[in-house]
Amino acid sequence: MTTHSSPYSTLDLEGVRTFLTSLPAIAARLGGTPDEWRVWEVSDGNLNMVFVAEGPEGGVCLKQALPHVRVDPAWKMPLDRTFFEAAYLRAVFPHVPDLTTECLHFDPEQFILIVPSLSGHTVMRTAMMAGHYHPAVAAQVGDFVARSTFATSLLAEPFERVMDRRICFARNQTLTRITVDLVLTDPYHDHPRNHWADPQLTPIVAALRTSPAVQARIDSLRLRFLCTPQALLHGDLHTGSIMTTGTDTRIIDGEFATYGPIGFDAGLFIGNLILNLFATPDRAGQAVHLDMIQTFWTSFKTRFLALWQEREWAEDRSTLYYATTDKSTQNFEKSLFIQNVFQDIAGFCAAEIIRRSIGYAHVADFSVLTDQSTRTTRQKAALLFAKDCLEQKKPLKSLADFLELLYLHMSAL
Amino acid sequence: MTTHSSPYSTLDLEGVRTFLTSLPAIAARLGGTPDEWRVWEVSDGNLNMVFVAEGPEGGVCLKQALPHVRVDPAWKMPLDRTFFEAAYLRAVFPHVPDLTTECLHFDPEQFILIVPSLSGHTVMRTAMMAGHYHPAVAAQVGDFVARSTFATSLLAEPFERVMDRRICFARNQTLTRITVDLVLTDPYHDHPRNHWADPQLTPIVAALRTSPAVQARIDSLRLRFLCTPQALLHGDLHTGSIMTTGTDTRIIDGEFATYGPIGFDAGLFIGNLILNLFATPDRAGQAVHLDMIQTFWTSFKTRFLALWQEREWAEDRSTLYYATTDKSTQNFEKSLFIQNVFQDIAGFCAAEIIRRSIGYAHVADFSVLTDQSTRTTRQKAALLFAKDCLEQKKPLKSLADFLELLYLHMSAL
Ligand SMILES: Nc1ncnc2c1ncn2[C@@H]1O[C@H](COP(=O)(O)OP(=O)(O)OP(=O)(O)O)[C@@H](O)[C@H]1O
Ligand SMILES: Nc1ncnc2c1ncn2[C@@H]1O[C@H](COP(=O)(O)OP(=O)(O)OP(=O)(O)O)[C@@H](O)[C@H]1O
Ligand SMILES: [Mg+2]
Ligand SMILES: [Mg+2]
Repeated sequence: MTTHSSPYSTLDLEGVRTFLTSLPAIAARLGGTPDEWRVWEVSDGNLNMVFVAEGPEGGVCLKQALPHVRVDPAWKMPLDRTFFEAAYLRAVFPHVPDLTTECLHFDPEQFILIVPSLSGHTVMRTAMMAGHYHPAVAAQVGDFVARSTFATSLLAEPFERVMDRRICFARNQTLTRITVDLVLTDPYHDHPRNHWADPQLTPIVAALRTSPAVQARIDSLRLRFLCTPQALLHGDLHTGSIMTTGTDTRIIDGEFATYGPIGFDAGLFIGNLILNLFATPDRAGQAVHLDMIQTFWTSFKTRFLALWQEREWAEDRSTLYYATTDKSTQNFEKSLFIQNVFQDIAGFCAAEIIRRSIGYAHVADFSVLTDQSTRTTRQKAALLFAKDCLEQKKPLKSLADFLELLYLHMSAL
Repeated sequence: MTTHSSPYSTLDLEGVRTFLTSLPAIAARLGGTPDEWRVWEVSDGNLNMVFVAEGPEGGVCLKQALPHVRVDPAWKMPLDRTFFEAAYLRAVFPHVPDLTTECLHFDPEQFILIVPSLSGHTVMRTAMMAGHYHPAVAAQVGDFVARSTFATSLLAEPFERVMDRRICFARNQTLTRITVDLVLTDPYHDHPRNHWADPQLTPIVAALRTSPAVQARIDSLRLRFLCTPQALLHGDLHTGSIMTTGTDTRIIDGEFATYGPIGFDAGLFIGNLILNLFATPDRAGQAVHLDMIQTFWTSFKTRFLALWQEREWAEDRSTLYYATTDKSTQNFEKSLFIQNVFQDIAGFCAAEIIRRSIGYAHVADFSVLTDQSTRTTRQKAALLFAKDCLEQKKPLKSLADFLELLYLHMSAL
């Protein structure tokens, strides 16, 4: 394999072709000769340059970090995020080969990551905004979260391996800082990065910022995010980080990877389902969302507990948790563990809904609603649901409690 | 400053003198000429070689790691533990300069750490075994735990600095493995390293190993130890890691340093106080122990909350926790935090009592009881107290609950 040691430079379309040509294994995967390859840009996120190249034999996707935020060149940013995305794929791919892409190549000087192309797949958010719901995807994402988090947790491995991986991802501080600030701090304070177009949201924003219960809960969630390294998280598992054909589903864009509470990934996913639910006008569509939330949770829980059960035969006793006690104690302790994950989900889900509505980076989902007053009603309802989640005196411990609260706020639609 | 780059070799008394001679700053601190220095060995722990050198002007203590456990040469062990002890001192000394020793020199090839000599101080366990109790020491240790943990926690600093320190100490895996195995796993299973002389303890050991509640709680504590990096811990804060004159108190031997739950250090300290309490025949002595536990806890809590209060003026909002909410919410959340620390204390305290009684490394405290049957009664009572702690359906949330349980088991004496 050729190695590059030229200084970093941002590639354009021709640069991409040249770069791919220099990598024999990648060139072979594409097939034919470089002039037969079609190369095009697909960047649509905030941060990076993304290209797809297709040749007669196959396709790859090339992602390169920029020294700044793609959509805001004034916001400077180190390049190493592509390293962490590659490291994430290397850590989780063996456990979820059918649900994410393999890291085919990583260039540590150009900060380029190459994975197989998913050009037949659609971004889940885009599909949902077009009214195409794929309930099976929710089960697959639940499976992904269960397998990727379980495999990287203390429940699966001796602590030394977990700590080695924590050491690696604890250096992903630039993107962790973005999560800490943009998701878990700024929306709750007056900050120039916050924005919302609709003045009718302003009173809710004010209420969020003056509610002691909201403030306390968001501080607890931030502390939990930074101080509960249960498993390697994807870190940005919204519906824009999922590509699907409806049957084949792949999680992409793990550059925010960090050790944290298992409920973080799941909370972001459910939060984005709920944002789309509130942006969906018809009751039938909403019913599919509710079904997807339920399916996701069942899939996650079932797989996670099944993987845990399989561990009973491990040799290193210190890696066994709740394995040797009697069945009823074992079930009780494992349920408590899962219940704690659910509490985190409810909290991070609410934080995601809020930051995607009044923070720096909004979701596009509501733009399908062309009627301003409908949009207002729905955005308000989503925000009020999230606020209510955070204000619960007793944390929401089960999906049933959570859905009850959701129904309550859906009745305002 | 001279640097050494000779390969590692274990120093003898003359080697120590030569080594100290080669370090101008240390030689100056000792004063006079090397032949005027008195050098003697003070190793009394399990792991390392420890020497004190005194010259006309002052004294130093030199600690060198061996490639094995000092008291068990067949148990091989990497040398890097002295690095972590030096790193621990560098991290916490600025916050507790009056309660520990400064790292004067660390040699990364010889794995030698040099700190000021405490030759006028006595090891706290030794003092207590001789019937010399210094209640003021408990307040000082509480202050040490509060200041060292607070300063290295997310409550005191931006998460980036905490993560950088976590990265460093997550490499202290050899000694963390010892804690995981010897403190939090082996005593609860049949393992060749466990031992106890008194057959009357055997039924209690059997009861510990068959109690589902004990098994579940110890697994939860192990998970919490490995998955709650709240602060930089000393990691081995027993009464043998404290040297005091009765007024001046210094914490030594931080080689087990790792990020973990704040209640771990405090739990080990209280556990060792309680072991000595049960080994103390007279009620008056026991009353002093109870007073020390109370004093320790009040001192810890008061200082920790005071440090937290001072943070209210920090500029980076994401580093503020429960600071901007109304006073009653703030007090509620902070009390909850402290209560969680107490729950950990109760658990780790119990684990320490158990492993110091039936695990690999026992405490000497009970050896002062020359009457076998008295010793048996008292060791049994200590073990049963610990078992009861671990078996509580509702975790012990306050010192009052904890002391109530302790009184109950003291009444068996
Ligand atoms: N493997 C792939 N195959 C085909 N297209 C892809 C692939 N990976 C990503 N894309 C396309 O590129 C877009 C941007 O990718 P990605 O989300 O990884 O970039 P990003 O800059 O990190 O975005 P964000 O701002 O969300 O962090 C995706 O929305 C998708 O349309
Ligand atoms: N700074 C010091 N000044 C004087 N004596 C000291 C000093 N530090 C340690 N000692 C003495 O050396 C002994 C061993 O020190 P220390 O506990 O650090 O060694 P260790 O081998 O790490 O022990 P352990 O088995 O507890 O880990 C202490 O019990 C004390 O008597
Ligand atoms: Mg991205
Ligand atoms: Mg030691």
